[in-house]
Amino acid sequence: MKQILVIGIGAGDPDYVTIQAVKALNRVDVFFVLDKGEVKQDLVDVRQEILDRHVDRAYRVVEARDPERDRSTPAYAEAVHDWRRRRADVCEELIRAELADGQTGAFLVWGDPALYDSTLAIVEDILARGGVEFDYEVIPGITSVQALVAKHRTSLNRVGRPVQVTTGRRLAEGFPDGVDDVVVMLDAHNSFTGVADQDVDIYWGAYVGTPDELLVSGPVHEVAERIVATRAEARERKGWIMDTYLLRRRR
Amino acid sequence: MKQILVIGIGAGDPDYVTIQAVKALNRVDVFFVLDKGEVKQDLVDVRQEILDRHVDRAYRVVEARDPERDRSTPAYAEAVHDWRRRRADVCEELIRAELADGQTGAFLVWGDPALYDSTLAIVEDILARGGVEFDYEVIPGITSVQALVAKHRTSLNRVGRPVQVTTGRRLAEGFPDGVDDVVVMLDAHNSFTGVADQDVDIYWGAYVGTPDELLVSGPVHEVAERIVATRAEARERKGWIMDTYLLRRRR
Ligand SMILES: C[S@@+](CC[C@H](N)C(=O)[O-])C[C@H]1O[C@@H](n2cnc3c(N)ncnc32)[C@H](O)[C@@H]1O
Ligand SMILES: C[S@@+](CC[C@H](N)C(=O)[O-])C[C@H]1O[C@@H](n2cnc3c(N)ncnc32)[C@H](O)[C@@H]1O
Repeated sequence: MKQILVIGIGAGDPDYVTIQAVKALNRVDVFFVLDKGEVKQDLVDVRQEILDRHVDRAYRVVEARDPERDRSTPAYAEAVHDWRRRRADVCEELIRAELADGQTGAFLVWGDPALYDSTLAIVEDILARGGVEFDYEVIPGITSVQALVAKHRTSLNRVGRPVQVTTGRRLAEGFPDGVDDVVVMLDAHNSFTGVADQDVDIYWGAYVGTPDELLVSGPVHEVAERIVATRAEARERKGWIMDTYLLRRRR
Repeated sequence: MKQILVIGIGAGDPDYVTIQAVKALNRVDVFFVLDKGEVKQDLVDVRQEILDRHVDRAYRVVEARDPERDRSTPAYAEAVHDWRRRRADVCEELIRAELADGQTGAFLVWGDPALYDSTLAIVEDILARGGVEFDYEVIPGITSVQALVAKHRTSLNRVGRPVQVTTGRRLAEGFPDGVDDVVVMLDAHNSFTGVADQDVDIYWGAYVGTPDELLVSGPVHEVAERIVATRAEARERKGWIMDTYLLRRRR
């Protein structure tokens, strides 16, 4: 049997990696890397730093080109599903061709594999197709959400109250019902500006846990402009941005 | 200046501890422990195992009696706030009396300090009172929610969709609005049985990440009874239970 490990490596600081992940990394014969052809060299560096510091055995790294996602269509979920299918094709081929029976392969995931990441769905897809057999395990990792609130030294929830994690796309449709604490990820459009007329505090962070980390907090109506400007400037300077925030309605 | 570290140690497996937490543990002169007078010896053992395995320096452990919480009142939030105040009294005294200037003290938190834990609120309370001065840092940890979904090898969210984390008490009032994926914590009353008439899957786990781990998943209407029985039996056997679950509405 082949073995696949889906390993969360944390979302920023290489020290977010867990002992469990370190042990898992040391079982791996082949690391599979989907090269996004991206400018996010810092993320590649974090991954490499973790391997260099913590892995004490010989391993191979096999890279494949990540298929392009259609970012033009408004059909977001369909575009993502289609992209997943094509990624599954690539990954299936990697597992078939590059991993021998009895060997262990791994996908390293930024943050935690359970949060807005497609690796688990891809692995399930491949298994469902039945073209290649393997067993797999999931290793949790520190998410960007946890990194964010730790740096702001605040909680995710208030006493006995719920917290929702959602996307910028959804926040643009309005502050979610039934919750006063909302974490927003994948926001390319400063959707928090849409709630600047409400009595809401924001805890915002970009590149959290990395040397470029930026943090801003305060009432949205007071700090929204500053965040928009900080975000634009940072994005310009680095060529990409990765930010998330907690919105907390005052009571 | 005194320094306080609030360190998340993960929620189950001692290997959930991060490298960042290990480094933080090795900066600590005094660990503060609120003795809950509880039967949860396993949790104390996990904490001790982490210290034994990873700390390479001399340290002191100072224990104090955790004040009792009023569990009889229906005013949940008020009871928790009152309990926090009394815990803050105890912790303030510990920091004042047991930590010298320039020393580092720490509170170890099960899972992540940001999720349904009062340590951060207590630390803020103490600072607001102004009776003792210190600086503090928060170190995130793997939550029971992440441990749960990793063991079930499932995601928290579906593509582009939100996920809510809430309490058993709130779920008892009905499936939350606007979300199809809900994580439930702090449920002492099998509140999932209230949604057994709906088309919902459950991913349930108790003592996740520990040798006593129990996992059950399936449509709620099919597995609810089995979970109720498993839960009662486990609670009886060990004297306490710690469980959480993800509810996923089918589409
Ligand atoms: C595709 S999702 C992956 C999330 C990841 N699995 C996790 O556990 O954090 C990417 C989004 O995560 C957030 N993100 C990831 N790393 C971040 C960081 N270091 N600082 C701020 N936001 C981050 C951003 O909202 C980004 O749009
Ligand atoms: C006071 S909250 C603390 C949560 C913790 N800070 C975290 O990050 O997971 C306690 C609740 O967490 C959940 N929990 C904690 N550890 C668990 C474990 N190992 N397995 C299942 N549930 C757990 C249960 O729902 C329990 O009622």
